[in-house]
Amino acid sequence: MRTIDWVPAEGQSPGHIRLVDQKLLPGTLSEVDVHSVEQLIDAIQDLSVRGAPALGVAGALGVALAAQNLSADSAREVIAKLRAARPTAVNLAWGVDAALAAFDEGGPEAALVAALKVRDDDIAACEAMAERGTELLSRLLPDRPRLNVMTICNTGALAAIEHGTALGVVEKLHHDGRLALAVACETRPLLQGARLTAWELKRMGADYRVIVDSAAASVLARGGADVVMVGADRIAANGDTANKIGTFALALAAAHAGVPFLVVAPESTIDPDTADGGAIEIEDRGSEEVCSFAGVRTTPEGTAALNPAFDVTPAGLITAIVTDTRVIDLGASQVPAHPTEAA
Amino acid sequence: MRTIDWVPAEGQSPGHIRLVDQKLLPGTLSEVDVHSVEQLIDAIQDLSVRGAPALGVAGALGVALAAQNLSADSAREVIAKLRAARPTAVNLAWGVDAALAAFDEGGPEAALVAALKVRDDDIAACEAMAERGTELLSRLLPDRPRLNVMTICNTGALAAIEHGTALGVVEKLHHDGRLALAVACETRPLLQGARLTAWELKRMGADYRVIVDSAAASVLARGGADVVMVGADRIAANGDTANKIGTFALALAAAHAGVPFLVVAPESTIDPDTADGGAIEIEDRGSEEVCSFAGVRTTPEGTAALNPAFDVTPAGLITAIVTDTRVIDLGASQVPAHPTEAA
Repeated sequence: MRTIDWVPAEGQSPGHIRLVDQKLLPGTLSEVDVHSVEQLIDAIQDLSVRGAPALGVAGALGVALAAQNLSADSAREVIAKLRAARPTAVNLAWGVDAALAAFDEGGPEAALVAALKVRDDDIAACEAMAERGTELLSRLLPDRPRLNVMTICNTGALAAIEHGTALGVVEKLHHDGRLALAVACETRPLLQGARLTAWELKRMGADYRVIVDSAAASVLARGGADVVMVGADRIAANGDTANKIGTFALALAAAHAGVPFLVVAPESTIDPDTADGGAIEIEDRGSEEVCSFAGVRTTPEGTAALNPAFDVTPAGLITAIVTDTRVIDLGASQVPAHPTEAA
Repeated sequence: MRTIDWVPAEGQSPGHIRLVDQKLLPGTLSEVDVHSVEQLIDAIQDLSVRGAPALGVAGALGVALAAQNLSADSAREVIAKLRAARPTAVNLAWGVDAALAAFDEGGPEAALVAALKVRDDDIAACEAMAERGTELLSRLLPDRPRLNVMTICNTGALAAIEHGTALGVVEKLHHDGRLALAVACETRPLLQGARLTAWELKRMGADYRVIVDSAAASVLARGGADVVMVGADRIAANGDTANKIGTFALALAAAHAGVPFLVVAPESTIDPDTADGGAIEIEDRGSEEVCSFAGVRTTPEGTAALNPAFDVTPAGLITAIVTDTRVIDLGASQVPAHPTEAA
């Protein structure tokens, strides 16, 4: 299964995009065929497809789709909308730009070739990150043959194409017999951890537990995890990292517990044009997601929420960033956890 | 409205307990008549009544109810069960013990007199805490005539009798024209913040916003609150404080942002027999609360959760504990927040 992919033209049918509708998980595994960029933008904004690497591929394939179906001018117009569909994730714009440059030079066929390369590069990048990540863990925690790993949001295959970023490392640990337990933060408000990460962990046969996000600090302080691994939506030039809301709180808790805190993300997530976290735009997704839960209203009528979808973890709280080509050592909190820590 | 109260005997009807069924809020405000200690234990365990001070009163009134309706031996048997209905909250056992001592000395009438005194003392204690808390805020934050306050769980009238502890301070700030905004953490898994605190804030006419718990660190780091105020379920002799899960994470975030972190709780919450946080039993409430909501399953079938209902905030992260009789200065993070703080 691929989270998002290109279905080639066949007979009368032009090529199109196919993606897993993640809104229906964990109940139903269902794929949607996407024939227009407008439809793709809807799927991105309602989070049918989400996750930084998958959004990069979605952006590139969206350009190929527009280039195939529309005049050059109409294509450019709709591609600009696609590029801005989610402001915090740099990968979306990056994927659009990669395919758009090819389109400008070589037309629709070149755009498709470039988009498929973005897809294939993502698959290879996730494999490289899993390799580098597990090696780094052996180095950081040499006395722990089997690890308890905590993570937030979904950074698995569902956030990428075939394998994930942070959860790709967890998957490799599991396949190598080195995973003791995965602790998945449920990830309010949209429960990507409870719904998607738990679904992937169950599918891979790993031992796992779900926790409410606010329990992470206590679980870490009591020695419940040896390492925290998260993905990223945008990494500033100085290492400050924007990721799912709750990541920053997790980094504070890891630092307090002396547990290594690793960001696992492809090089394309690093944005050299963003100097530091202060320059990252944070999407506020409005009150509705917070004020209701599984379709049931939880707050009094008329209640408003603050709903920042992302937060920024300062580089100083990050032990290392693992990408597909390197490990960036930021040096924070490399002392393994001790259960004797207070709380 | 009182959250829990004693309905005196009238004609043929013996006295009984009446309480607000908090499970039905914010949708419905409804009171339940409780005629047996078994029924009271059920109400405590399913969280129809919750909140440390209210549990103290529930414990005391439960003793009066048993003393009135049962033989001394049967009463003692059921009172022992009541005392252990929720292990983390010290107030429940404290309220039981207060009325039980009177019962031992003076029989059913003395038990009732003692229980009503626990109730009245709670009302007076909350008023004293509101007074002390607002005074302390004037001292800690002299240059802020109007405050943004963040809180977690529900520590309002619904957690006590007529006024709350931490939310009692917020209520007084509001009535004194000193509250700019209250930020209520939703408080997973049972959403006491989203359901109950938001309901109380709306009822008092305060300006408020709800956030997911994991957004607190980011909101604090960006200057979104001037102070964090929380309640307590048990305070150890050294100041370590057990409270709703998520409180410890909030204290870490407040310390990082340089925002004062205040615990507001009656003297009865302080347990001199508990040396420090490590000795506090933490109730795990099982997987169901985390893995489903309002009957809708959110995790894959067969998923298990870790569900600690409380965590322990080390004294070193607490600025001060405000009780009904004093302010205990613990000295942590008294520098006001600056929005320039990273993230």
